[in-house]
Amino acid sequence: METLTIIAVASIVTAGLTICIGVIGTALGEGHAVATALSSLAQQPDASSTITRTLFVGLAMIESTAIYCFVVSMILIFANPFWNHAIAQVAGK
Amino acid sequence: METLTIIAVASIVTAGLTICIGVIGTALGEGHAVATALSSLAQQPDASSTITRTLFVGLAMIESTAIYCFVVSMILIFANPFWNHAIAQVAGK
Amino acid sequence: METLTIIAVASIVTAGLTICIGVIGTALGEGHAVATALSSLAQQPDASSTITRTLFVGLAMIESTAIYCFVVSMILIFANPFWNHAIAQVAGK
Amino acid sequence: METLTIIAVASIVTAGLTICIGVIGTALGEGHAVATALSSLAQQPDASSTITRTLFVGLAMIESTAIYCFVVSMILIFANPFWNHAIAQVAGK
Amino acid sequence: METLTIIAVASIVTAGLTICIGVIGTALGEGHAVATALSSLAQQPDASSTITRTLFVGLAMIESTAIYCFVVSMILIFANPFWNHAIAQVAGK
Amino acid sequence: METLTIIAVASIVTAGLTICIGVIGTALGEGHAVATALSSLAQQPDASSTITRTLFVGLAMIESTAIYCFVVSMILIFANPFWNHAIAQVAGK
Amino acid sequence: METLTIIAVASIVTAGLTICIGVIGTALGEGHAVATALSSLAQQPDASSTITRTLFVGLAMIESTAIYCFVVSMILIFANPFWNHAIAQVAGK
Amino acid sequence: METLTIIAVASIVTAGLTICIGVIGTALGEGHAVATALSSLAQQPDASSTITRTLFVGLAMIESTAIYCFVVSMILIFANPFWNHAIAQVAGK
Amino acid sequence: METLTIIAVASIVTAGLTICIGVIGTALGEGHAVATALSSLAQQPDASSTITRTLFVGLAMIESTAIYCFVVSMILIFANPFWNHAIAQVAGK
Amino acid sequence: METLTIIAVASIVTAGLTICIGVIGTALGEGHAVATALSSLAQQPDASSTITRTLFVGLAMIESTAIYCFVVSMILIFANPFWNHAIAQVAGK
Amino acid sequence: METLTIIAVASIVTAGLTICIGVIGTALGEGHAVATALSSLAQQPDASSTITRTLFVGLAMIESTAIYCFVVSMILIFANPFWNHAIAQVAGK
Amino acid sequence: METLTIIAVASIVTAGLTICIGVIGTALGEGHAVATALSSLAQQPDASSTITRTLFVGLAMIESTAIYCFVVSMILIFANPFWNHAIAQVAGK
Amino acid sequence: METLTIIAVASIVTAGLTICIGVIGTALGEGHAVATALSSLAQQPDASSTITRTLFVGLAMIESTAIYCFVVSMILIFANPFWNHAIAQVAGK
Amino acid sequence: METLTIIAVASIVTAGLTICIGVIGTALGEGHAVATALSSLAQQPDASSTITRTLFVGLAMIESTAIYCFVVSMILIFANPFWNHAIAQVAGK
Repeated sequence: METLTIIAVASIVTAGLTICIGVIGTALGEGHAVATALSSLAQQPDASSTITRTLFVGLAMIESTAIYCFVVSMILIFANPFWNHAIAQVAGK
Repeated sequence: METLTIIAVASIVTAGLTICIGVIGTALGEGHAVATALSSLAQQPDASSTITRTLFVGLAMIESTAIYCFVVSMILIFANPFWNHAIAQVAGK
Repeated sequence: METLTIIAVASIVTAGLTICIGVIGTALGEGHAVATALSSLAQQPDASSTITRTLFVGLAMIESTAIYCFVVSMILIFANPFWNHAIAQVAGK
Repeated sequence: METLTIIAVASIVTAGLTICIGVIGTALGEGHAVATALSSLAQQPDASSTITRTLFVGLAMIESTAIYCFVVSMILIFANPFWNHAIAQVAGK
Repeated sequence: METLTIIAVASIVTAGLTICIGVIGTALGEGHAVATALSSLAQQPDASSTITRTLFVGLAMIESTAIYCFVVSMILIFANPFWNHAIAQVAGK
Repeated sequence: METLTIIAVASIVTAGLTICIGVIGTALGEGHAVATALSSLAQQPDASSTITRTLFVGLAMIESTAIYCFVVSMILIFANPFWNHAIAQVAGK
Repeated sequence: METLTIIAVASIVTAGLTICIGVIGTALGEGHAVATALSSLAQQPDASSTITRTLFVGLAMIESTAIYCFVVSMILIFANPFWNHAIAQVAGK
Repeated sequence: METLTIIAVASIVTAGLTICIGVIGTALGEGHAVATALSSLAQQPDASSTITRTLFVGLAMIESTAIYCFVVSMILIFANPFWNHAIAQVAGK
Repeated sequence: METLTIIAVASIVTAGLTICIGVIGTALGEGHAVATALSSLAQQPDASSTITRTLFVGLAMIESTAIYCFVVSMILIFANPFWNHAIAQVAGK
Repeated sequence: METLTIIAVASIVTAGLTICIGVIGTALGEGHAVATALSSLAQQPDASSTITRTLFVGLAMIESTAIYCFVVSMILIFANPFWNHAIAQVAGK
Repeated sequence: METLTIIAVASIVTAGLTICIGVIGTALGEGHAVATALSSLAQQPDASSTITRTLFVGLAMIESTAIYCFVVSMILIFANPFWNHAIAQVAGK
Repeated sequence: METLTIIAVASIVTAGLTICIGVIGTALGEGHAVATALSSLAQQPDASSTITRTLFVGLAMIESTAIYCFVVSMILIFANPFWNHAIAQVAGK
Repeated sequence: METLTIIAVASIVTAGLTICIGVIGTALGEGHAVATALSSLAQQPDASSTITRTLFVGLAMIESTAIYCFVVSMILIFANPFWNHAIAQVAGK
Repeated sequence: METLTIIAVASIVTAGLTICIGVIGTALGEGHAVATALSSLAQQPDASSTITRTLFVGLAMIESTAIYCFVVSMILIFANPFWNHAIAQVAGK
């Protein structure tokens, strides 16, 4: 196998695993937060504005962890510095 | 094995694993959120509009993690830059 | 092994694993949602229309994650672009 | 090993794993739903018609995930496009 | 190893694993359903006919997932199309 | 290794694993059902006939999953069609 | 390695694993049943005869799953048809 | 490696694994049963004779699963029919 | 494989795994913290300022663990000292 | 590697694993039993003699499973029949 | 592969795994501590100063475990004594 | 590799794994027992002498399982009969 | 690979794994202790001095287990006797 | 690889794994004990002297299991009899 093929395969596999493993915790954590928000709303409807605001801030924090994984996954597919270097090396040969 | 075959196999396997592993957390998280929404509705039917709205926003956030995986999976199957490069390399040879 | 055989094997194995792993979370999540719906109905029979409607919307969201896996699995079996390319390459040789 | 043997082995193993792994979540989810239905019936016998109807709709949704796996398993055994292609290739040789 | 041996070994191992892994969820799910049925009967003896009928329908649904696995296992042992094709190929040689 | 040895080893290992993995869920499920039956009897001694009858029906359903595994295990040891075919092939050579 | 050695090793390893994995569920299930029986006796000493009888029937059902494993394990050690066939084949050579 | 060495190694490893894996469930199950017996005694000291008797019967049933493993382990070390056959084969050579 | 390829592959795979494994705990921990914050707000709306402030400080602490992983992941992709050394070594050759 | 070395290595590794895996369940089970004994003593100090006696009988039963593992481990180290046979075979050569 | 490449790969992989595995416990532990702090604040707002101070001390202790991992990870990337020795050995050659 | 090296490596690895795996259950079991002892003391300070005495007896029983592992580990390092035999064999050569 | 490289790689990988695996339990244990301390402070603010002092002593005990791992990790990186011996052996050659 | 290198690598890896795996249970067990001590202090401040004393004795018992692992780890690094023997063998050659 040549260099380009190996790097391509590693990037493909890693990009897929990064996003699929990374979102497991995010989805479970957001599900937990949303679920508690709903039961809190049912328990104290008067505090709905505070609860909703805190929920959205919390969801943004949790979602940020999935964003990190998505960013790394996109970098590996579309802006991979190692792939670019290998392409340049092949082209300049 | 030639380069095209290896990249094709890696893309197929990764695309499948990405979506199947990625939806586990999403499905469990959404199930948890929907379940709590239902018990909250039974407990406080008067707050149904607030609960339903918050539930839909939360489900959208959680579903977004599955969308990330689906997007990566589709990119790997239908718009794989590494595959396109290999095709171009073979065609231009 | 020739190229066609490898891609066929990878597609078969991935298609099967994608759908079987992907439905685990869906089935558990739906089971959790349905179970809570039933206990909510028993607790507050008057809110049955709201509960049923929310349950169906939630089940549709959760079922969508299994649909993603089923779609990827069907694409890998019946509309696999890598397999089509390999077939065309062999036929045109 | 020749092509036909490899594809046959991959199809056999994948068909078996697909259905056996896929039904684990289904069985657990249905068990959870049925169990809650029974305790709800004991708690609110008057709502038995609503509970039973919702239970059957829910079981159908959950069972559908097992059906997906069964369909993929049957396709792999009896209508495998890769196997048909390999058979045609061998016959036409 | 020749073709027949490989297919035979794959069929034997897959048939065994399919049924043994597939029944784990079924047994746990049925155990959960039966257990809840018993505690519901103790709690509300008057609703025994409704509980028993719902239990049997539920057990049939859950048992169906084990039947899927048993059917696939039997097909792999006694009506394996890949094995039949290999036998025919050997006989016709 | 010759054909007969491989099939024999695969049959031995699969027969053992099938029954030992398959009974785990059965034993746990039955233990759960029996345990709930006992606590239900202690809670509502008057319903003992209904509880006992439902318990026995449930245990029969759960035990059936272990029977499936035992049947497959016995078939693999004493009525293995692949082994019989290999024996016939050797004898007829 | 010759045929006899391979079959002997496979039988030894499988016989051991069959019984040791198979009894895990049995021991846990029986422990659960016995524990509930004891707390039920403490809660309702008057129903001790019914509880004890149901416990023994249940323990017999659960123990049967361990017996299946023990039977398969003993068959593999002392009445292994594949081993007998190999011995006969060697003796008759 | 010669035949005797392989069978000896397989017997040693299997004998050890059989007993150490097999007692995990037994120890946990007995611990659960004893613990419940103690809390039942504290809750209902008057029923101590019934509780103690039922506990001992239950412990005997659970201990029997460990005995199965110990018996198989001892058979593999001291009365291994495959080892005896191999010894006889070597001696008679 | 040459040195550059190996280091590139190791960096790609490690960068992906580092961020995807590292965010699992972060997402679950933040989900737990946010969920408790919401139920605390519903229980004691008057203490919302103290609860919100403590929540944000806590989220910052938890998020810091994901930042560590992101930093290491970015260093491995964009400022990898081992890659830089290898590049310099190749260039200076 | 010669016969003696292989048997020695297998005995060393198996002896260690047997005792270390085997005591996990024992320690957890005894911890559970002792813990319940202590809370039972705090709840019903008058029954301390019955509780203590039952605890010691139970601990003896649970400890016996660790003793089985220790016995097998010691047999493998100091009274290994396979090792003795190999030694005798070497000495008598 | 030469010495420098091996050490570089080992350092890259270990640095990534060290920080990503090490923060899992830290994030979960801090999430648990923060969550309890929030519910304690809601329960006893008057003790907020004591609770906050104890929380910060505790978070510092827990965070220290992540710092250990981060320090080891940074040492492996930027101040690796084995890498420095290998560089010196190569340079001095 | 020569005989002495193999036995030394096996002894080193096994000695370490034996003690580190073996103490997991012991530490968790003792932690459970001590924790219950403390809550029992808080609940019933008058029974402190009985509780403390029973706790120490129980801790001794649980600690004994760790001692078994430590003894086997020490035997493997300092009084290994297989190592002594190999040393004697080498010296006497 | 030469001796120095192997020892360096083993030291790097082991040092990283030692600290990252070792802190998981420490972080979870400290999180549990701190969380209980906070809820105890909320429940009994008057005992804050005793609770805080006991918490710090306990945290020191738990932290000590992480220190053990950190010490071993540092020894392996900076004061590794096997590495020093290998360096001396190479230098003195 | 020569003998010294193999023993050094085995000692390094085992020493690290022994301490890092061994402290997991210790840290969790101590965390559980300390947590219960704190909630007991909050519940019964008058028994603080008895609780504290019992806690320290218990922590010492639990810590002893980590000490065992630390001792074995240190022996493997600094007083390894197999390493000393190999050094002596090399020196005396």
